[in-house]
Amino acid sequence: MLRTPAYAAATAGAPLAPFTIERRAPRAREVLIDILYCGICHSDVHSARDEWGGGLFPMVPGHEIVGRIARIGADVASFAVGDLVGVGCFVDSCRQCEPCRAGEEQYCERGMTATYNSRERDTQLPTYGGYSTRITVDADYVLHIPDGLPPDRAAPLLCAGITTYSPLKRFGAGDGREVAVIGLGGLGHIAVKIARAMGARVTVLSSSEAKRDAALALGAHDFAATRDARTFKRLARRFDLVLDTVSAAHDYNACLGLLRLDGTMVLLGIPERPAPLAAYVLIGRRRRLTGSLIGGIRETQEMLDFCARHGIAADIELIDIARINEAYDRMVRSDVRYRFVIDMASLRGG
Amino acid sequence: MLRTPAYAAATAGAPLAPFTIERRAPRAREVLIDILYCGICHSDVHSARDEWGGGLFPMVPGHEIVGRIARIGADVASFAVGDLVGVGCFVDSCRQCEPCRAGEEQYCERGMTATYNSRERDTQLPTYGGYSTRITVDADYVLHIPDGLPPDRAAPLLCAGITTYSPLKRFGAGDGREVAVIGLGGLGHIAVKIARAMGARVTVLSSSEAKRDAALALGAHDFAATRDARTFKRLARRFDLVLDTVSAAHDYNACLGLLRLDGTMVLLGIPERPAPLAAYVLIGRRRRLTGSLIGGIRETQEMLDFCARHGIAADIELIDIARINEAYDRMVRSDVRYRFVIDMASLRGG
Repeated sequence: MLRTPAYAAATAGAPLAPFTIERRAPRAREVLIDILYCGICHSDVHSARDEWGGGLFPMVPGHEIVGRIARIGADVASFAVGDLVGVGCFVDSCRQCEPCRAGEEQYCERGMTATYNSRERDTQLPTYGGYSTRITVDADYVLHIPDGLPPDRAAPLLCAGITTYSPLKRFGAGDGREVAVIGLGGLGHIAVKIARAMGARVTVLSSSEAKRDAALALGAHDFAATRDARTFKRLARRFDLVLDTVSAAHDYNACLGLLRLDGTMVLLGIPERPAPLAAYVLIGRRRRLTGSLIGGIRETQEMLDFCARHGIAADIELIDIARINEAYDRMVRSDVRYRFVIDMASLRGG
Repeated sequence: MLRTPAYAAATAGAPLAPFTIERRAPRAREVLIDILYCGICHSDVHSARDEWGGGLFPMVPGHEIVGRIARIGADVASFAVGDLVGVGCFVDSCRQCEPCRAGEEQYCERGMTATYNSRERDTQLPTYGGYSTRITVDADYVLHIPDGLPPDRAAPLLCAGITTYSPLKRFGAGDGREVAVIGLGGLGHIAVKIARAMGARVTVLSSSEAKRDAALALGAHDFAATRDARTFKRLARRFDLVLDTVSAAHDYNACLGLLRLDGTMVLLGIPERPAPLAAYVLIGRRRRLTGSLIGGIRETQEMLDFCARHGIAADIELIDIARINEAYDRMVRSDVRYRFVIDMASLRGG
């Protein structure tokens, strides 16, 4: 086993602190990755603080991982030592159910094996995530980072990128379609870039006017503040597709009113409580409300290739791992533009 | 003008009582229809009792109309005197907006002109519905009742039929698909017949076991009682499509749990209050929640032809118009299998 420095929450809600984990030498179908960068996702904060319950502690979060292949197992043909690669939200799945066979492992009927806070399917050992210097992963669940993507800014694509790319593509953010992105955080800012690159006309809705300039700079065509009551009137029935990235409590019915006939609103955030839904808002214009969960391995690769082709990467604030707890606090206050990424050199000690 | 016997609610919530209205002789593009039968829809009760507000009184309800052409205007080529015809929920629309041009007049952006409790677009006169012996309607908004459909049992197809046919077709109740119909009333019992004829495998969910035999007799393959907590576990992730016909308050999240990956639940009923929706129920399996509003003229004709081809008509209780108030009370208690239809001979007095 390979003793590996990491940062962990020892118990639910404990601050993250240095911790040592074991990574195994790669088995025949596995690769060992030296982690260069790991993005900090909001779900890392929820999980480390056990806000969704059921957390396995000590917990090493992190599922926006970019690194280089350090060793490969005997049966791995798809990667070579030195390749720049990524690992996203899951590292295994049953591989046999209908979603797995369709390349949508995120919907595995037996449950995907999450990159952290989960248990390996065979060994039942806990999985530890990317806040560490290396990770051993089955090669089938590893992504190629294409040339031209800056590795630090690519890290958040592994979660925030695929979470927005998948529904934008599936629900039709193509040429000339009117797309609204609600919320301009880690997910929202990537959604704007991807939707724009897909050819959509993009409007950002954010609570106040504060993010107008930032939204337009990211490529949005229009901006509106949701606190301004006129917004929902002005933009009523405008959009083919609404991507709702907000996790705080908010009014689904008002947002659905932005959709035209047969338009689709996609929920990506999970508010703490269920929110009231008025049937007539759906019925009156055959609107659709749906949700979307990251994406499968094949689609994640497609997204990375798309981003490389269009010069899309996350806007990030690169930090040393010692600042992780401060970063968590700032994220809770939405004080980051738009994603923290940990420079793992700071954990290697040079 | 043609003095025409009708039944009206004089004021909000007043019992329905005999009333005389005027129908005009058909203008060039209109037809005059002698009404033979008119179904009683739940929305008649809500409207006459002004439970949705904004009602125009006196009100003559009724939008499930079957009758014979008595006169035609000079420019009407699509109908001849004596033709058996139907009129559904609307009698006009703007004809110019995108939905109208697409044959989806029910979503007219300027608002369809409802068959009753609305105002004519040109004259601004109130529209009066099918609880009357005749009606004058623009020929573009009149349906052909195909041979082989019993006229009394066809009447409810004009609302209940198209309300279920349209989403069953649009959201894919085809060969071998697993379809659930929640609620076995006027809408539900037609939905079972249509879904079955489309080739779906149909399961009825109703509150208690009381309707099991009836559901199976209508053609359902399976039945489950929603009051039995095991139902939602047994049928979890079973269905491609759920038609939710229930207007009483109920748990959307539990119903959504019945859907498999990418499944769709269609709301057809409008509960009095918004109901709590949990985002993760949608996100976890990319489920879709939508609603559907009757159907356009073209699709309504398609539905009537489909029903004639498959021998589908509503199961009804034919009543004299003098029993209308009793029928309303029984409907509120769900005491009807499955639709009341008024025999308009009882209003003609012979």
